[in-house]
Amino acid sequence: MSLLQDLSWRYATKKMNGEKVAQEKVDYILEAVRLAPTSSGLQPFKVIQITDEELKAKIQPIAYGQSQIVDASHLLVFAAYDEYTKERIDAPFAQQEVERGLPKGYADDYKNQLWTSFTQRTREQHFEHAARQAYIGFGVAIAAAAEQRIDATPMEGFVNAQLDELLGLDKLGLKSVTILALGYRDQENDWLANLKKVRFNTEDFIINRN
Amino acid sequence: MSLLQDLSWRYATKKMNGEKVAQEKVDYILEAVRLAPTSSGLQPFKVIQITDEELKAKIQPIAYGQSQIVDASHLLVFAAYDEYTKERIDAPFAQQEVERGLPKGYADDYKNQLWTSFTQRTREQHFEHAARQAYIGFGVAIAAAAEQRIDATPMEGFVNAQLDELLGLDKLGLKSVTILALGYRDQENDWLANLKKVRFNTEDFIINRN
Repeated sequence: MSLLQDLSWRYATKKMNGEKVAQEKVDYILEAVRLAPTSSGLQPFKVIQITDEELKAKIQPIAYGQSQIVDASHLLVFAAYDEYTKERIDAPFAQQEVERGLPKGYADDYKNQLWTSFTQRTREQHFEHAARQAYIGFGVAIAAAAEQRIDATPMEGFVNAQLDELLGLDKLGLKSVTILALGYRDQENDWLANLKKVRFNTEDFIINRN
Repeated sequence: MSLLQDLSWRYATKKMNGEKVAQEKVDYILEAVRLAPTSSGLQPFKVIQITDEELKAKIQPIAYGQSQIVDASHLLVFAAYDEYTKERIDAPFAQQEVERGLPKGYADDYKNQLWTSFTQRTREQHFEHAARQAYIGFGVAIAAAAEQRIDATPMEGFVNAQLDELLGLDKLGLKSVTILALGYRDQENDWLANLKKVRFNTEDFIINRN
């Protein structure tokens, strides 16, 4: 199967059937997210994996009562750094030094440049930058789920601050940006399951500057 | 090949060899982006495809002289809506009505809700929301390129306003957010080509709330 076939197969599942997804398949999706690229390799986000039924029930009202929250097998909450700090910028480079056997401080100039650049931006701009990186991983997760023939609903419709509080994300310096609900479609009862996928035409979506 | 193998193969190519990528492979990547999901199906971004050598040469200084800009075969510029308008929100629903054979105005309530929600946000917040959607497509494009064994460099390092002006994006109500340079790695001369891919450990990257 190709990625194009996977993307054609998938859709934003509106009704799931409650069936559980094997953990190894979810682990595959999480590994794809971990391998996804991010700006300067900073990986400025985390994924919170939720399977607990009580916790899902608490999240449902925060997500305007959407049924996928409780009918999904797993919820993946993508949560971005609320700001970049010196420590957060240092961490991936320190790991690179060790894993690549590079001399200590090999990337100091680059790191300092990065840090200087971030000091010139607001905390809100830090978060937006981090959130965009999370969305790269989010896109990759959607592709990975489709490849595994696991249904997924990308969900932005929830009260972020309430979810952050429920999950204790503020204490971790994180802010939720999006949720991917994983499960299996309820083909009969999902109004969207049998509708044609609609996208802008290529001629309108792609602009050629050849 | 699996997506995980594709993601392990790829890396942010720092030096490309100038070889051209077959247009049908680039078209495959663009089609993957077109099929990628976006919030409420609004597809609030466009992809500008650039192959012209003179145009690439003009972009290079805007991207701090990075060599991939001119050594790449194709540049894909992801550019998000500078704001949501009533027309931009209406467009995908109008197309759905036709292609799905749904009654005219079937989504009016949902559309009005969306529009009301956007009127409560600033123009900058509109753009940030649109930019995030572009990053889903960006993530999918990176996966699609890797699947095709086409090298790709995700690039945020350029002066956005200058690129917007050069490409006339402001007149289209668009703002550039990121570039994907497509081509083939220069294995011998790319310092990053043979270094280990480094990522945070799964235990640090994934937070379990089971």
